[in-house]
Amino acid sequence: MPTSASLNTLTNHQIRLASRPVGLPTRANWSATTEPVQPPAAGGVLVKTLALSLDPAMRGWMNEGKSYIPPVGIGEVMRAGGVGVVVASENPLFAVGDHVSGSLGVQEYMLVPGDQLKRNGLFKIDLRLGGLTEWLNVLGMPGMTGYFGLMDVGLPQVGETLVVSGAAGAVGQTVGQMAKIKGCRVIGIAGGAAKCDWVVNTLGFDTCIDYKAGPDAVRDGLKQHCPDGVDIYFDNVGGDILDQVLARLARGARIIICGAISQYNNTTPVQGPKNYLSLLVNRARMQGIVVFDYADRYHQAVAEMAGYLKDGRMHSKEDVVHGLQTFPEALLKLFAGENFGKLVLQVAES
Amino acid sequence: MPTSASLNTLTNHQIRLASRPVGLPTRANWSATTEPVQPPAAGGVLVKTLALSLDPAMRGWMNEGKSYIPPVGIGEVMRAGGVGVVVASENPLFAVGDHVSGSLGVQEYMLVPGDQLKRNGLFKIDLRLGGLTEWLNVLGMPGMTGYFGLMDVGLPQVGETLVVSGAAGAVGQTVGQMAKIKGCRVIGIAGGAAKCDWVVNTLGFDTCIDYKAGPDAVRDGLKQHCPDGVDIYFDNVGGDILDQVLARLARGARIIICGAISQYNNTTPVQGPKNYLSLLVNRARMQGIVVFDYADRYHQAVAEMAGYLKDGRMHSKEDVVHGLQTFPEALLKLFAGENFGKLVLQVAES
Repeated sequence: MPTSASLNTLTNHQIRLASRPVGLPTRANWSATTEPVQPPAAGGVLVKTLALSLDPAMRGWMNEGKSYIPPVGIGEVMRAGGVGVVVASENPLFAVGDHVSGSLGVQEYMLVPGDQLKRNGLFKIDLRLGGLTEWLNVLGMPGMTGYFGLMDVGLPQVGETLVVSGAAGAVGQTVGQMAKIKGCRVIGIAGGAAKCDWVVNTLGFDTCIDYKAGPDAVRDGLKQHCPDGVDIYFDNVGGDILDQVLARLARGARIIICGAISQYNNTTPVQGPKNYLSLLVNRARMQGIVVFDYADRYHQAVAEMAGYLKDGRMHSKEDVVHGLQTFPEALLKLFAGENFGKLVLQVAES
Repeated sequence: MPTSASLNTLTNHQIRLASRPVGLPTRANWSATTEPVQPPAAGGVLVKTLALSLDPAMRGWMNEGKSYIPPVGIGEVMRAGGVGVVVASENPLFAVGDHVSGSLGVQEYMLVPGDQLKRNGLFKIDLRLGGLTEWLNVLGMPGMTGYFGLMDVGLPQVGETLVVSGAAGAVGQTVGQMAKIKGCRVIGIAGGAAKCDWVVNTLGFDTCIDYKAGPDAVRDGLKQHCPDGVDIYFDNVGGDILDQVLARLARGARIIICGAISQYNNTTPVQGPKNYLSLLVNRARMQGIVVFDYADRYHQAVAEMAGYLKDGRMHSKEDVVHGLQTFPEALLKLFAGENFGKLVLQVAES
């Protein structure tokens, strides 16, 4: 571990937002900067980034305008959740060597002043409950999103039919596995045979529709596998797939709106669900979720799902890419559907 | 009252669906027929139609395809709810002279066999609780739709801001008045100054936005009158107005999807709400309602609202047009927004 004296010799490499993208982000939207690492003042903590979570939501944070959190400002270090290790601490609640999770940003070191600890969301993680990257997946924000979206908005009942898009992604894998544990019949939607095989054979979904298999694959798959309609749809993608599921709702269905990755890089207006009147015909409900609202209950979900990871009832799959400087290209894997599992950027080994 | 013997001399004029419309229905989509009136068999009731309810939902019933009720078949008498008087009865529960409400159809006489009474929804109405046309409005299907949509899905809280489109229409007037009684601040959206004046000055809404006042009237009006966002939106119209309200939701908002009159005569696909991701940002909910689900509780809503009509806290306004043969043109008033109040077709005086 570096001492305070040696900290001054360290350099912090960072990726900053240089301009707002139109459509898919490019290299030109980012700038690489370096700063000397500063030791923490009283109450503060210095964290060395080990791994960062790359999420579809990042694309939204790059846009101007009001949303559930403010946009990243031009010239600011790109926002990112991550896990790391405390390398210097002036706070009795954090010791050097502690592993932590928080909003670390796309950079090698994050200095969190004492009065920013809560705002940053910094908390200690217990590697006995799950591995480092699992703390960015099932035990992290995606897992919490899937858990509370399913349990609090989806209200799963034994025997119901649940469909989840982005099934092999971070949120999708938690949703489908939790729904199986709660007694639902689970149909995933994912891109490609490899993801579909994994979702069924490793995660235990009842079936998985490969949306890349043809223009009618989703429509035909839903018709085949949901003869009595869809009771719960957990939507990570929006667009045509949302419309296809709307056309097959069961009476009293619940749709959880978690994201719309198909729409985030649009240069035209968002595609609204033209089948939304199915909500009327089927007395169904479409509801949005933002994970931060459940922060007080994260520990419950972590405890429950860490148990399932231990006893083998749940699996957590991460797609790990390496090197801070690969961030701009790594992020694009999400929008091409190229990641297989939760996309994680490993920044340092320890 | 005619006797059984004299019934045979009566002619029943009817309007039948001749073909399925594309876009707005025309005269060519209807046919006029006549049949001799038949006396009821054992258990049955013969009802003389006095007034029929003309509703936007009728447009949906004219389309092929699955919905919350089957479509009207080609050649069938057009489905319509109505109020009438029993002119012959072979059922001890109904006496000649009783006023009733039920699915009478667009015709002068409805013969309801004994085994069809429940399916028809025939029930006696008490003209001490409300006038004949009020039983098609606040005390009828539109009133029940507004009442249960607001109370069961909207969940109004004192001090919340409610917006209702089609504010001067059948459902809208009930929704806004009930929301005022429940302590909400109520903003109507209606077409034209006369409707807006009535909604504010007679019904007691806090304000009303005239959507015909200009292309930005709804956007600007919502911005002005809902500075803290919209807590409840009761949507009767869909289309652009739904999108404008979505753009101004308060956190935790509830949207009741009751109808989408702006879309019913489309010859292109329904316009999906492109701002639906506001549901996510605002942790909001959009839910459909079909009034028939609440049939067991109609009597409660009727009792409550009949009291408000009596004590002057609620008003019921009907726009009455006359003559069975005017049905094809009368229906079109709805889609042009020309009706002022609940549209009723008076078929006979007594």
